[in-house]
Amino acid sequence: MSQTQNKKPVINLDYQASKPVDERVVKRMLPFFDQLYGNPSSLHTIGDVAEDALTKAREQIASFLKILPEEIIFTSGATESVNLALLGYAIRNRRKGNHIIISEVEHISQHNLVKYLEKNGFVVSKVPVDQYGRIQVEKLRKRITDKTILISVQYANNEIGTIQPIDEVGEIAAENGIALHSDAVAAQGQLDLHPKDHHINIMSLSSNDFYGPKGVGALFIQKGFRVSPIIIGGGQEKGIRSGTENVAGIVGMAEATRILQEKQAEEVSRYRQYQHKLQKEILAEVPHSYLNGHPTDRLPNNTHFRFDGIEGESILLMFKEQNMAVSTGSACSSKTLEPSHTLISTGLLHEEAHGSLEFTTGRYTTMEHIDKAVELTPQIVKRLRELSPLYSEIKVT
Amino acid sequence: MSQTQNKKPVINLDYQASKPVDERVVKRMLPFFDQLYGNPSSLHTIGDVAEDALTKAREQIASFLKILPEEIIFTSGATESVNLALLGYAIRNRRKGNHIIISEVEHISQHNLVKYLEKNGFVVSKVPVDQYGRIQVEKLRKRITDKTILISVQYANNEIGTIQPIDEVGEIAAENGIALHSDAVAAQGQLDLHPKDHHINIMSLSSNDFYGPKGVGALFIQKGFRVSPIIIGGGQEKGIRSGTENVAGIVGMAEATRILQEKQAEEVSRYRQYQHKLQKEILAEVPHSYLNGHPTDRLPNNTHFRFDGIEGESILLMFKEQNMAVSTGSACSSKTLEPSHTLISTGLLHEEAHGSLEFTTGRYTTMEHIDKAVELTPQIVKRLRELSPLYSEIKVT
Repeated sequence: MSQTQNKKPVINLDYQASKPVDERVVKRMLPFFDQLYGNPSSLHTIGDVAEDALTKAREQIASFLKILPEEIIFTSGATESVNLALLGYAIRNRRKGNHIIISEVEHISQHNLVKYLEKNGFVVSKVPVDQYGRIQVEKLRKRITDKTILISVQYANNEIGTIQPIDEVGEIAAENGIALHSDAVAAQGQLDLHPKDHHINIMSLSSNDFYGPKGVGALFIQKGFRVSPIIIGGGQEKGIRSGTENVAGIVGMAEATRILQEKQAEEVSRYRQYQHKLQKEILAEVPHSYLNGHPTDRLPNNTHFRFDGIEGESILLMFKEQNMAVSTGSACSSKTLEPSHTLISTGLLHEEAHGSLEFTTGRYTTMEHIDKAVELTPQIVKRLRELSPLYSEIKVT
Repeated sequence: MSQTQNKKPVINLDYQASKPVDERVVKRMLPFFDQLYGNPSSLHTIGDVAEDALTKAREQIASFLKILPEEIIFTSGATESVNLALLGYAIRNRRKGNHIIISEVEHISQHNLVKYLEKNGFVVSKVPVDQYGRIQVEKLRKRITDKTILISVQYANNEIGTIQPIDEVGEIAAENGIALHSDAVAAQGQLDLHPKDHHINIMSLSSNDFYGPKGVGALFIQKGFRVSPIIIGGGQEKGIRSGTENVAGIVGMAEATRILQEKQAEEVSRYRQYQHKLQKEILAEVPHSYLNGHPTDRLPNNTHFRFDGIEGESILLMFKEQNMAVSTGSACSSKTLEPSHTLISTGLLHEEAHGSLEFTTGRYTTMEHIDKAVELTPQIVKRLRELSPLYSEIKVT
């Protein structure tokens, strides 16, 4: 079955929004739907088999992350993990202080989440970023007060791909005895995910972002760090996340880490080739085009352009007509048509931020897909500029 | 693959703890893992296909429940639904009052949840039940104050199967202008699930409890009733439940309702036959045995016994040796070995509650499984009583 059912398959260059589940993951999950379907809390054999699978999945993911199995809490995905990290840590540690620091370029969900914290007595500071979207470490240091209990800085940005100086951030957090949460979702499958190497105490993960199923995620919580549950009930996951465990999904997430361990090095080197070609050829072919994000310290799968005088939404629709899926910001805010808060944080004007185009590659991307993108982009930009009164003005000035 | 891999398959008479996913549901989900894997928030074709599937699933489930599609919020399962219902409603409507009423026999997750509400300024009253576990409607009426904003009463009990007088509860709630939440999870697949016929304004559902995948649930929220989100982020599900939607799981849940619409009448009639046989023959064969729950107003799939002088845990282990999965309380509290709060609420002593055995049947139960249970139960009870000093005393008195 193709994406469009009757037409030829869509070329996906928007892996950041969603990834297909690896077929080996699907195969591994299947028996857990209709054969090994127990509730891990049951005391009989059907339950034992499920509990055993859960234990093995937890060990496999822990080994991949170089953490202890008991440091993993399974959740329903990235958003729940981030909620459990920020709300859960803030509520549990409120006696120690009410100040939280996040970066300006965190995922939109964190910006919405801290509004809720602010309404509930917490004070939140946001650390600005430079023109490449890299957090300004000295400004982070200056925002720390004796009330600061938590710093939240992503591994890498989900929109423009900029890799954050997480080691420096980790050292500052550790020196000051402040917990560090990192949203590692965008970095999954590309950077190492060993939180303890970077002084990260809490880390959010999503299964789908390394080709596991949607609806599953995890939160690493280092031993000694405590969070309050945000979903209360039967006491599963050491009381931190109640609800019958999604065993098939968790087994799938574990299989996804196993495959990644084998493939990551090869995949990253392939993504770098795609990135190099996209960046070099599109910047050369399209006048008044720029790269968003850091020129070198960026996720291998991410290439993010800005074109003067045209709108991201129109770019998207033109690519859609050509059977190619691309993005003009994070999928989570695409439908609002608000300019990306990340791009605005790097100092762009609203109209500049609006003219953006993001390619993210993945496991099933081929060089033919990249060739097609390199061929289409200059044509699409040219056509849109011909229709744009805005662009004629830009050319004149 | 069997449950035990090398041994013969386990006979499952503990469907209440977990259900296999129907193979038609698995088949329907499969393309959404690796082919139709889009993020419904994306603006391109891959996202459109996912959004379309989500819309159709929502319509199918709404039609099954006789509600509007926009009255469904998808969640990660029953526990999250119940949390969103109780916490979400309490927080959103606090200005109207701070008093909540639940029944003594609600699922353990609600009892844990209201402890949290009590710590946060809410007052919670619990309505007692009669010897059969039926909520005492007049006592509910007396507990209502001008601060009462929410009543939470299950459709039917998850442990002893007693069906609650939900119509009477609904009328009381409606007369007093108080919202009614009902946990319909235990009733799924057996009773009608049409909340609007019973003055239910908010209803919790779990996909697995009608043979859909784990990790998916839903909350019906009637138009005009409002809840605060408990997971905050990108604004999916009208801002009430953020996080990329688990499209495959939701499509699976919709397919599960489609199958149920075809099969429910036949299945319920089959469960009644199993129930009749288990109840009649085991009570006749085993001296000092009793039925827990209501003799007639009970879920068709549930038969729940109490045997003097023996312990549920030992009963469970003896059945396990005989390759049969049964329960001695809810799976969620089995591992704590606390006596069931539901049985205690019906007036049983701790030692009486401990000697319980619950059979729950399901889609793949056959009369051969029931024959085996009828054959094994008297043997197991007899054997355990021979080992029990407690039982000799009971016989003498």
